[in-house]
Amino acid sequence: MYTITISDRNCAWLAPPADGPVETIPVTEPKPGEILEIENGMLGRAALIRQARAAREAIEKHRPDRIVTLGGDCLVDLAPMAYLNTRYGGTLGVLWVDAHPDVLTPKDFAQGNAQVLGALLGKGDSDLVSEVNTPIKTSHIKYAGLDAWMPVEGAVINTFGLRRAGSDSLAETSAPVLNWIADEGIAHLAIHFDVDVLDPAKFGPVLFNKPGAPADAWTDVPRGRMLPDQVVRLLQDVAATCDVVGLAIAEYMPWEAIAMHNMLRKLPLLAG
Amino acid sequence: MYTITISDRNCAWLAPPADGPVETIPVTEPKPGEILEIENGMLGRAALIRQARAAREAIEKHRPDRIVTLGGDCLVDLAPMAYLNTRYGGTLGVLWVDAHPDVLTPKDFAQGNAQVLGALLGKGDSDLVSEVNTPIKTSHIKYAGLDAWMPVEGAVINTFGLRRAGSDSLAETSAPVLNWIADEGIAHLAIHFDVDVLDPAKFGPVLFNKPGAPADAWTDVPRGRMLPDQVVRLLQDVAATCDVVGLAIAEYMPWEAIAMHNMLRKLPLLAG
Repeated sequence: MYTITISDRNCAWLAPPADGPVETIPVTEPKPGEILEIENGMLGRAALIRQARAAREAIEKHRPDRIVTLGGDCLVDLAPMAYLNTRYGGTLGVLWVDAHPDVLTPKDFAQGNAQVLGALLGKGDSDLVSEVNTPIKTSHIKYAGLDAWMPVEGAVINTFGLRRAGSDSLAETSAPVLNWIADEGIAHLAIHFDVDVLDPAKFGPVLFNKPGAPADAWTDVPRGRMLPDQVVRLLQDVAATCDVVGLAIAEYMPWEAIAMHNMLRKLPLLAG
Repeated sequence: MYTITISDRNCAWLAPPADGPVETIPVTEPKPGEILEIENGMLGRAALIRQARAAREAIEKHRPDRIVTLGGDCLVDLAPMAYLNTRYGGTLGVLWVDAHPDVLTPKDFAQGNAQVLGALLGKGDSDLVSEVNTPIKTSHIKYAGLDAWMPVEGAVINTFGLRRAGSDSLAETSAPVLNWIADEGIAHLAIHFDVDVLDPAKFGPVLFNKPGAPADAWTDVPRGRMLPDQVVRLLQDVAATCDVVGLAIAEYMPWEAIAMHNMLRKLPLLAG
């Protein structure tokens, strides 16, 4: 088997060393004060499409059996999941470990990171969808740790009949997910792990802990309720019953590192 | 002028790129479950002395005019400060930005990180002291952000007549430090910046924010009370009035990165 790792420097240095090739997808930082524009309903759309295509090219260069993706926001999983589902003949199982369903479209919400699973189903922005050769089979998708959603998201979940295991059902056991794997006969599984599925009181580097954020920021966005040990146990249990061929880590927000970086770059002998 | 950087991977990747040679001092991690022993009153003494000597050798290989040190605990500043004071003929000024005076001896406290400024004055563990060819002139030392100390530390401060600017006196102005630089005619200054001088409610990656620590942990250890912007302003003001030839960053505790690392290394496709 052959694994590639697509890496982000904020997160990759914290993972064990890769045992296969490593690719880095360049992401241009906005200039100081630059405001990204909404293009066809999506913030920074051209850049996002460019990055997704660069990831696809990096993957197709290697044609690996497995992919580890260290992001970056949730949209980092578009190219890996799309490739893996084609690689495994449209039978890929997808475990979406996330506090949010990621099935919005530009009509509902301007951020591409909330649209990635929709695109993998063939729904949403045409350029995102066109990156997906083989849409994921809807019965092969299971949410883990998803407890709340917006009405427009609920409509998509119902239309496609997407399965869900909430955080309470996974607190002590992995059975809801293991049963789904058995029932559907899933042999090859890709895992999307958005760290915001974790309780922000128990795991610091997530959006909701942004230093200095107003007390009423994101009050209408559901918080994760899982614990790190619960997700680790779930993913280990899953790996014992089927072949995990994809793992993406998304939405890690290194607030401490950002604070340290912002301070160091202003100090004598370090400032430019 | 010629600068070397002594780096630690937790912190160095967050600093702007070095503009001179970079040296890394190897630090052997304790094995899982290994308890460091107290040797002649100091925890892990042999390893600490070995690291201090390795830093000294790395510095003497380059004989630089300036040193940036990205640690690591406070003891990382033993070799750089000792070298720089000899390099500048015993006239080095030392600005010790820290919530703790770091003048304990093995008789008082078993951790070497709390002994480093004492050793630079020629007081304490004989092997630490023997790394200091030219003790720092006591009138050339000034604490910044130091508000509280133990009686045994107070005795050392009084005996040596060490100067101090508390956090309140530096909240709005750098004058207490700038006046000292002018009064003493300090031309070359080295700065020791222990990030635990910062208010732990305002800056996360310090000891006092260790995740899962008992509520009564370190209740008898003074917390820092400065803000990041106050320290940045102080150090920038200082750099405008004299030649900053040394900067050490100590006690950065990347709790978020540790939590992420501990989780990633247990996940499918990443676990060894």
